[in-house]
Amino acid sequence: MLALLVDPSSPGGIRLAVDYPPPTPTPGEVLVRVRLAGICSTDLELARGYMGFRGVPGHEFVGEVESGANELRGKRVVAEINCIAPQRHAGLAELRKHDPARTVLGIAGRDGAFAEHLTVPAANCPVVPPTVSDRQAVFAEPLAAAVQVLRDCPLQPGQRAAVLGSGRLGILVAQVLARQPCELTVVGRNSLRIELCRRLGLNACELSDVPAGRPFDVVVECSGAPDGLREALRLVRPRGTVVLKSTYAGAASMDLAPVVIDEIRVVGSRCGPMAAALELLAGGQVQVEPLISAVFPLSRGVEAFAAAQDPAYLKILLDPTIHE
Amino acid sequence: MLALLVDPSSPGGIRLAVDYPPPTPTPGEVLVRVRLAGICSTDLELARGYMGFRGVPGHEFVGEVESGANELRGKRVVAEINCIAPQRHAGLAELRKHDPARTVLGIAGRDGAFAEHLTVPAANCPVVPPTVSDRQAVFAEPLAAAVQVLRDCPLQPGQRAAVLGSGRLGILVAQVLARQPCELTVVGRNSLRIELCRRLGLNACELSDVPAGRPFDVVVECSGAPDGLREALRLVRPRGTVVLKSTYAGAASMDLAPVVIDEIRVVGSRCGPMAAALELLAGGQVQVEPLISAVFPLSRGVEAFAAAQDPAYLKILLDPTIHE
Repeated sequence: MLALLVDPSSPGGIRLAVDYPPPTPTPGEVLVRVRLAGICSTDLELARGYMGFRGVPGHEFVGEVESGANELRGKRVVAEINCIAPQRHAGLAELRKHDPARTVLGIAGRDGAFAEHLTVPAANCPVVPPTVSDRQAVFAEPLAAAVQVLRDCPLQPGQRAAVLGSGRLGILVAQVLARQPCELTVVGRNSLRIELCRRLGLNACELSDVPAGRPFDVVVECSGAPDGLREALRLVRPRGTVVLKSTYAGAASMDLAPVVIDEIRVVGSRCGPMAAALELLAGGQVQVEPLISAVFPLSRGVEAFAAAQDPAYLKILLDPTIHE
Repeated sequence: MLALLVDPSSPGGIRLAVDYPPPTPTPGEVLVRVRLAGICSTDLELARGYMGFRGVPGHEFVGEVESGANELRGKRVVAEINCIAPQRHAGLAELRKHDPARTVLGIAGRDGAFAEHLTVPAANCPVVPPTVSDRQAVFAEPLAAAVQVLRDCPLQPGQRAAVLGSGRLGILVAQVLARQPCELTVVGRNSLRIELCRRLGLNACELSDVPAGRPFDVVVECSGAPDGLREALRLVRPRGTVVLKSTYAGAASMDLAPVVIDEIRVVGSRCGPMAAALELLAGGQVQVEPLISAVFPLSRGVEAFAAAQDPAYLKILLDPTIHE
């Protein structure tokens, strides 16, 4: 089958394989035909060496179950990305995502969705409601990660919150937070994206326009930049909270003294509840269409990866069903 | 008067001045004759350039009030180190330590206690109970910082907590935490200090002897080493908490991905309640005498700084009343 592969010997760390062996589901797994997949900043980091991953990346997708669990066959599904053996299924995503024996779809020890087919544990797959389109459903995974911010850092009414980063993830997080009774500001560096935030009804400004005096109680770091935490620490008030969402390859040079002196809480936050994300999409409470910059056929995936690194683009989707 | 000065042009960043001008209290301040002062790792970092401080370091002391507020005159006092103008006194240490206009005794914008005299706002000075000796009282400031750990990260009964670092601050933090119904382990690198911890009744082991599997719910990072957070992240369970107590000069190279992937909470924690510390000392609930490695006359302060950097020593005290 057609598949994209993380391969450090290729230019850009990614290459197309035309004859990659299709996967075979093990007991408890389903075989999914991918309908649409999304490129995330983590995928770009994988191509740069993050996690030392080899194989098929891709963890944001919507697809149709072809074989495996009967009750899912023929259904459109998305998937929670942390996979554990069926006998370990406690059913709790909170435990699943921290199981030391887990594999992670397209990130660690398991091929992902930038291919014509993938396998995934049936227990990981919520069914997509019929009112949610493929182009919406492909956002379920990052939107779930956005929802998780509120579980890791509940906002109090009236709190001043900032989302640092007006990219793919930042705009999803901002839309989730904007539904809370807080004062929300998206802080970005890219004027086009700030403009888009405003069109989505979000309060947004450039980093250089943030008033002095470290005005935010909570800063959610979604910039994906190695200096993101440093910037966040310049925006958050003493004894405030910084929520870290981004992961990236390699180490950043970081002066941690401000964390101690200002008694900041830094909260790591990762995957979230897929069902809650699908509900938000079904209810039209989060707009994802404006985030789609382009859809590439999977066969042009290498080009799509290059586009996804261009700040002029937001979400790039891969469609394995288009054959050029 | 005799004073030690942070001076980047001197070898080791510190020098003795024999004719430093004695301070004059401003309204709201008291003039204190220093009886005993303690060298903290922060002082060593100041000598290496931390905070860009110039002047007299020293923020752990006990002294006698010579002039200023009548009700304190002749009394033995210690001091909360964050100083704000009298009209800004809200009385709340929580606010005082994060006032952007504050000075910090011997750390930022204000001379400290490694001198024969210092001035400090009267509002910062709790009186030392008569049952607390000078050699105990000089530990009030770092012990208050140890008490603050529990305010920033309350421990639940049965939780497994580690104090990373068996140095001056680590042993104080460990003694405070050991009074909670948690399972406490001091994790160190220095076998002599681990032995001391055990003599103090603390459960302690070498870093290399910590069982695999990241066994701790909470890790309090007191090592003072730039790689302390990295080590702490190797010890704490997913969704656990790391409390950062150490500050040091300069930036460390740090891979923050584990914070996100494992959804760790990193909590900066700094100065604490002086009154609570004095109570613990008065009640004999924390042992500080075994931490005193040596008392140097202030006139030999440069030598004392060198000794404080030797891992064979724990707390080094400076006594300005000894004239050799």
